Amino acid sequence: MSEKYTIGLDFGTLSGRALLVRISDGAELAARTMEYPHGVMDRYLCASGEELPPDFALQDPHDYLEVLDYILPGVIADAKVDKENIIGIGVDFTTCTMLPIKADGTPLCFEEKYRKEPHAYAKLWKHHAAQPYADRINEVAKERGEEWLAAYGGKISSEWYFPKVFEVLDKAPEVYADADHFVEAGDFINMYLCGCLKKSYTYAASKAMYDMEKGYPSREFFAALDPRFADVVKDKTSAPMVYTCGKVGNVRKEIAERYGLSEKTVVATAQPDAHVATSALNMHTAGDMCAIMGTSACYMLIDDKRRNVKGICGVLRDSLTPGFWGYESGLCCLGDAFAWAAENIAPASYREEADSLGISVLRLLINKCAEKAPGETGLVALDWLNGNRNVLIDSDLSAMILGMDLRTRPEDIMRALIEATAFATRVITDTIEASGVKIRRIIAAGGIARKDPFTMQLYADVLKKDILIAESRQIPALASAVYAAASAGEDLLLCMERMCHLSDTVYHPNTAASEVYDALYKEYLTLYDYFGRGQNDVMKRLRRIKENSKK
Amino acid sequence: MSEKYTIGLDFGTLSGRALLVRISDGAELAARTMEYPHGVMDRYLCASGEELPPDFALQDPHDYLEVLDYILPGVIADAKVDKENIIGIGVDFTTCTMLPIKADGTPLCFEEKYRKEPHAYAKLWKHHAAQPYADRINEVAKERGEEWLAAYGGKISSEWYFPKVFEVLDKAPEVYADADHFVEAGDFINMYLCGCLKKSYTYAASKAMYDMEKGYPSREFFAALDPRFADVVKDKTSAPMVYTCGKVGNVRKEIAERYGLSEKTVVATAQPDAHVATSALNMHTAGDMCAIMGTSACYMLIDDKRRNVKGICGVLRDSLTPGFWGYESGLCCLGDAFAWAAENIAPASYREEADSLGISVLRLLINKCAEKAPGETGLVALDWLNGNRNVLIDSDLSAMILGMDLRTRPEDIMRALIEATAFATRVITDTIEASGVKIRRIIAAGGIARKDPFTMQLYADVLKKDILIAESRQIPALASAVYAAASAGEDLLLCMERMCHLSDTVYHPNTAASEVYDALYKEYLTLYDYFGRGQNDVMKRLRRIKENSKK
Repeated sequence: MSEKYTIGLDFGTLSGRALLVRISDGAELAARTMEYPHGVMDRYLCASGEELPPDFALQDPHDYLEVLDYILPGVIADAKVDKENIIGIGVDFTTCTMLPIKADGTPLCFEEKYRKEPHAYAKLWKHHAAQPYADRINEVAKERGEEWLAAYGGKISSEWYFPKVFEVLDKAPEVYADADHFVEAGDFINMYLCGCLKKSYTYAASKAMYDMEKGYPSREFFAALDPRFADVVKDKTSAPMVYTCGKVGNVRKEIAERYGLSEKTVVATAQPDAHVATSALNMHTAGDMCAIMGTSACYMLIDDKRRNVKGICGVLRDSLTPGFWGYESGLCCLGDAFAWAAENIAPASYREEADSLGISVLRLLINKCAEKAPGETGLVALDWLNGNRNVLIDSDLSAMILGMDLRTRPEDIMRALIEATAFATRVITDTIEASGVKIRRIIAAGGIARKDPFTMQLYADVLKKDILIAESRQIPALASAVYAAASAGEDLLLCMERMCHLSDTVYHPNTAASEVYDALYKEYLTLYDYFGRGQNDVMKRLRRIKENSKK
Repeated sequence: MSEKYTIGLDFGTLSGRALLVRISDGAELAARTMEYPHGVMDRYLCASGEELPPDFALQDPHDYLEVLDYILPGVIADAKVDKENIIGIGVDFTTCTMLPIKADGTPLCFEEKYRKEPHAYAKLWKHHAAQPYADRINEVAKERGEEWLAAYGGKISSEWYFPKVFEVLDKAPEVYADADHFVEAGDFINMYLCGCLKKSYTYAASKAMYDMEKGYPSREFFAALDPRFADVVKDKTSAPMVYTCGKVGNVRKEIAERYGLSEKTVVATAQPDAHVATSALNMHTAGDMCAIMGTSACYMLIDDKRRNVKGICGVLRDSLTPGFWGYESGLCCLGDAFAWAAENIAPASYREEADSLGISVLRLLINKCAEKAPGETGLVALDWLNGNRNVLIDSDLSAMILGMDLRTRPEDIMRALIEATAFATRVITDTIEASGVKIRRIIAAGGIARKDPFTMQLYADVLKKDILIAESRQIPALASAVYAAASAGEDLLLCMERMCHLSDTVYHPNTAASEVYDALYKEYLTLYDYFGRGQNDVMKRLRRIKENSKK
């Protein structure tokens, strides 16, 4: 019997990648990556040069297709396997990254009429301008005692589906009226591949308040938000729902011909880029938590019971490893925060030093951090450069750094930021454990887990837990390949076992360091509460002052 | 009758300068500046390469003499005036910058034995390692109800004379025992010029708790601090005291020959580099305040009554314009803070942009700041990069910046720091005015006042007061030249009027900007109290954690 293969397509924040994998042992035969030509549009809309309002983060869906055009035929050509043996394709995508489309799948921003309309573009997960609409949804849901609210920790985020759709209705009613669907970008890619629109259960459940048994929130709820919004589910959101490992369809003829695939190739339902990872990380026991550490951090935990954890985004059945309750949480800013520091607070002399060593400024800063002892910077920071997505769930929060004197150097600030993200993670793990869930071990993946031992040891010391590291460098893509195999009829757990491996690296907490971090964490918590829980709402007021300053 | 001239010698934090001035009209005939070869030693002791403990800031007195050797003969040579017509020399120096010397004036660190002993060097004003000794002095003074404490706002600073001497006693008892005097660096220079030690009243009154009528604190007080310290005044501090405009002596023969001076040239009593400025700024009416804005900021006010203002360092008779009560206050970090930002938080691309424009990175950052509207950064900062010298008087405080998101740029942080120093200034002016003193106008001098209209307008907007600018670019040196004339027998007020002029530039507050700054100032005050007045002593605790991390 000949070997079989699947392709995982992983669409991240800045780039897309494809991975072609052998399902008998997980061997990675070919991989291709390409950055989105327009990246993240957060200052200007490329099509018009127009300045975007604060908190916008848009993408051009042309970029997704252009990347697909390069990576998908690329891995097929590189791997040199018989197309008949490529049995499935799985897609994962950042979420909630959503866009308005016509019934035939064309994004509204492809139309000349809407080329210069920001609300016709894809709103990236970290588009935070929908905060007022999230506030309104939370307020009305609380007033009406909506049952679904508890499953999301009592508060939904501005990053989610309905706040973003609501924003379009309010700010660009014409776009809202002309759109036949608002879809997650992952579902958009699958529609492009198969020619039919089906929606992924995991997107809907984790970002659109969809309950497996009760469906979306009621028409009455949406009407209470805004009468024009009453029929948003029926008019703009409805489509057949496909569960994890389910099949959307087979690749349509044009796609098969164009990319060199068989028309028998199955396309699996799309998944959040973070969620899928759990399958590539061998999470198979209650209390397993994974940490996907890239531009942002996703923390996912499986447990055998359902518990409501305040401020954790989702507690959903079968959303991660099937058969378990999945708890999803994270930081909306991790690598992004470190990149911000490297870009903004490292002087020319550091660039020169980095160049002479042949490393990036970011790497140089982290190397310099590593020379210091815990507590030696004298700094403590709040990591909310992109707001707070978990526990506080407030995108109006901003970052803070405290303790600088004239001897403070850029690496001190970098280290304080890294520590702050570890403390933010500990707030999450402490909150989860306080609800009765015991975190058994942490399995980490993503660029930071792979490339940055300093940060990983620091996390082990702060969290006081062992951290294991996944072997593959392409976790989400590998996971999508696993799901692709399952949707093509293979056994999921068997595929996980065969295709996904852990490396030999384990970070064990260092007791002496943990003691110092305990003291710093205490300071972090005091400031976290002071600025994050309403004792001093200065961050929100500064945001209002900033908005008014531009009028 | 031939024209007469005087020379002002101004020793700042990083460099010394000489100015030769015609006393009939203030014409500046020659000026020379030279940086101290070893600058400020705050990381390593140059003589040994040994790392210094935190909060050290030392200087090598060889540097003072080397600078003197260049600047003093330099202006005499450049001005080409008859040496018989150079009637006086005046010296001003940063304070309290003090050093241990032998009876013949030789600094202890010139001896081979003490070349590698940090405590034998000059401790610069911003040497903050004496904080525990200042704490002890404040504690004991409060317990004993020492009367002099009120004149200094109820608390003395680690920057002052006795904390620094006490630190030597405790940390390097041999240096303490071998020193015949601990002197201010300004008095040291005059001893070098004249060959005899006399002490400046203004140094003693503003930095060594000396009262015109009651003298220094009592032997009992010093004994209560530490029995070994009981006789510090008699053994290490005593010398004839000379008041402002008084004469220390004439230049000694060797100096006259070496530098091309007449032996008749009078040397005026040394002055704090900030205090002297008031005479060059024409402060002659109650409520006149001057702002000397350089690496740090000195604010000096004259009034006709004595009032105790909490947290203002000194309220002393005749210390500024003779005939008035002088109120001295300031920020221990101004240009230093901006330089810190330019050095640490401006990326390589900014250096390139600055180079292409032929300006400094600091200037580029300030130009970029100026393009923003008040409040547009969304940031607020506490400016305590060098502790807080006024109102709170606590060198353990550190800086804070709040409000950053991923779009925050270096110029936003720079602007927040500039605003923070303006808010810190407003805390001082508000505190002074709350005591009943009305501030009539502000006259500014120093590098920032002259070169940075953006910052000056921002200060006018924040303080809501007119700010006038002095004409001379060499204010302290000019003032020292005025005092030199007075000490040589000329009339002080007449010299001030003839020699010192204001420019035509006046900054008037802009009402719209003031309104925004009022809102930001409110936020600043809340954070100022929260972090500065014991609600959350995180800054102090971080400092302890930092100290322990190095053990």
